[in-house]
Amino acid sequence: MSELRCLVLGAGGFIGTNLCLALRARDVPVTGFGRGDAPAVLADIDWVRGTLEQVPSLDTLIAGHDIVFDLIGAGLPNSSNDNPAQLVADAVPAKVRLLEACRRQGVRRFLFASSGGTVYGVTGTRAVNEDAPTEPISAYGIGKLVVEKYLSLYAHLHGLDSRVLRIANAFGPHQNPDRGQGLIAAIMQRLLDGAPIEIWGAGDVVRDYIHIDDVVAAMLALRDHEGPGRIFNVGSGIGRSVAEVLDDAARITSRAPRLVRRPARAADVPVNILDSARLTRETGWRPHTGWDDGLRDTAAWIAARQEAG
Amino acid sequence: MSELRCLVLGAGGFIGTNLCLALRARDVPVTGFGRGDAPAVLADIDWVRGTLEQVPSLDTLIAGHDIVFDLIGAGLPNSSNDNPAQLVADAVPAKVRLLEACRRQGVRRFLFASSGGTVYGVTGTRAVNEDAPTEPISAYGIGKLVVEKYLSLYAHLHGLDSRVLRIANAFGPHQNPDRGQGLIAAIMQRLLDGAPIEIWGAGDVVRDYIHIDDVVAAMLALRDHEGPGRIFNVGSGIGRSVAEVLDDAARITSRAPRLVRRPARAADVPVNILDSARLTRETGWRPHTGWDDGLRDTAAWIAARQEAG
Repeated sequence: MSELRCLVLGAGGFIGTNLCLALRARDVPVTGFGRGDAPAVLADIDWVRGTLEQVPSLDTLIAGHDIVFDLIGAGLPNSSNDNPAQLVADAVPAKVRLLEACRRQGVRRFLFASSGGTVYGVTGTRAVNEDAPTEPISAYGIGKLVVEKYLSLYAHLHGLDSRVLRIANAFGPHQNPDRGQGLIAAIMQRLLDGAPIEIWGAGDVVRDYIHIDDVVAAMLALRDHEGPGRIFNVGSGIGRSVAEVLDDAARITSRAPRLVRRPARAADVPVNILDSARLTRETGWRPHTGWDDGLRDTAAWIAARQEAG
Repeated sequence: MSELRCLVLGAGGFIGTNLCLALRARDVPVTGFGRGDAPAVLADIDWVRGTLEQVPSLDTLIAGHDIVFDLIGAGLPNSSNDNPAQLVADAVPAKVRLLEACRRQGVRRFLFASSGGTVYGVTGTRAVNEDAPTEPISAYGIGKLVVEKYLSLYAHLHGLDSRVLRIANAFGPHQNPDRGQGLIAAIMQRLLDGAPIEIWGAGDVVRDYIHIDDVVAAMLALRDHEGPGRIFNVGSGIGRSVAEVLDDAARITSRAPRLVRRPARAADVPVNILDSARLTRETGWRPHTGWDDGLRDTAAWIAARQEAG
């Protein structure tokens, strides 16, 4: 696969940065595309600055790439419900134009980072597999689901090959704790700062936390996957409550949390745990990073960031 | 229910006209909303002319209505794939603004005409129920599915009560044979005219045809439904091929068809048959119109229209 050229859309974000680092470490030719300049750690890779909506030519951006990773997010689950039409009105048409350009340019595979935490909506307390009903309770989740449906349409109509990764709550190095996206990053930063930590509701919301190294491994494995599946959960299969995460983060950092309680949020599903057996069956992938190890390297990265900046 | 005031969006169309006639026959107060003037048969009902995108105030339109029937379509399944981003970019945000206005105005129930023929995508040869996977192969089907997801979101976030009707291929009086929407109407008109009939592919595409009277009965039944279901198939449960429909239409009208063969269309699923057991179980609804009776009254309406026009 090493000769296949990859384009990473949203390369400046948390997942994108880690993916680009992994591709570069494997000598895979890679172009990063992001709304800002390349992160310092990616200063030596090919980089295009822009947004899907404003790039002069999607065809020029995509030309010459075999594999496209689409990691471009669209806001946050909770705030998406403040203006629920906006996301679909703006982001989805841009994604469809992107698919059109990929098909014109003969892209061999399109890999889409969907959201295992939002597309299913309210589930039971057991891990859900990819065949579970999809009833998002946020416009953010609807937006992800619509792109999945367009990918399926483009495979049927035009043969555009794709894989969807429904990723659980990813955490680890390069997750910016100031962007409100990652619970673990935010907790770690506040613990290390001695700052107050906001908890929504009783802290009993359960999520499936997966280390970024395991997410990147899933992406690399799905580059040349040839099995029947098109949609894959990427999660640990283990549910942890906010209260548990707090306890463990406090233990790892040896800091005592200062808690501020806030009301529960309507777009938070109570439980979300992903069953990733399909991915294991079809690619051999399994999560490898231990929970404590993952918390430790997240804390170390945030501590180093604080010292640097 | 008769005191509850109904608003029918898309009242000038095939389903809308029949629904308004049925509501008027039951002395239910009803307002029609359509892009043109009221059809002649509805000249005596309250009528507002406009489109969701251009009406001066959605709140003013909706105010004072308890039940909203949304029958506004968005193009046709096949042509939707010519510009797949357009439908979602234009129609979906207008629908979301409509839901916002309904919730502000305290609408008691929102009934949405979805598409049983397109939301499921490619199915097996057996009837599908509402829990089947939804993988549309047209942007039209994706657009319907997205509105369903927003209805579920609005029920969860805001308590907006709704029912989704996934309607099979409806046919009967008031289906305009010139709009390319109804196979039976188009066939009947061409048989009666002695005009050539275009058949896509081998004529082996199988659909579930449901008479409009039975569709309207389902809508009336779901106005005050209190059971657990929110999404309901509305179909006959019987699959008929294009070739069978042609044979039966020719028999009923005693005309010989002149056929013109065209290539198969990518957005046509091979088979679509709906299992409506949920609707029967929760409301007692069953289709009542016999196949031959339905073909006969369709033929009679088209013949009368040709004589009038």
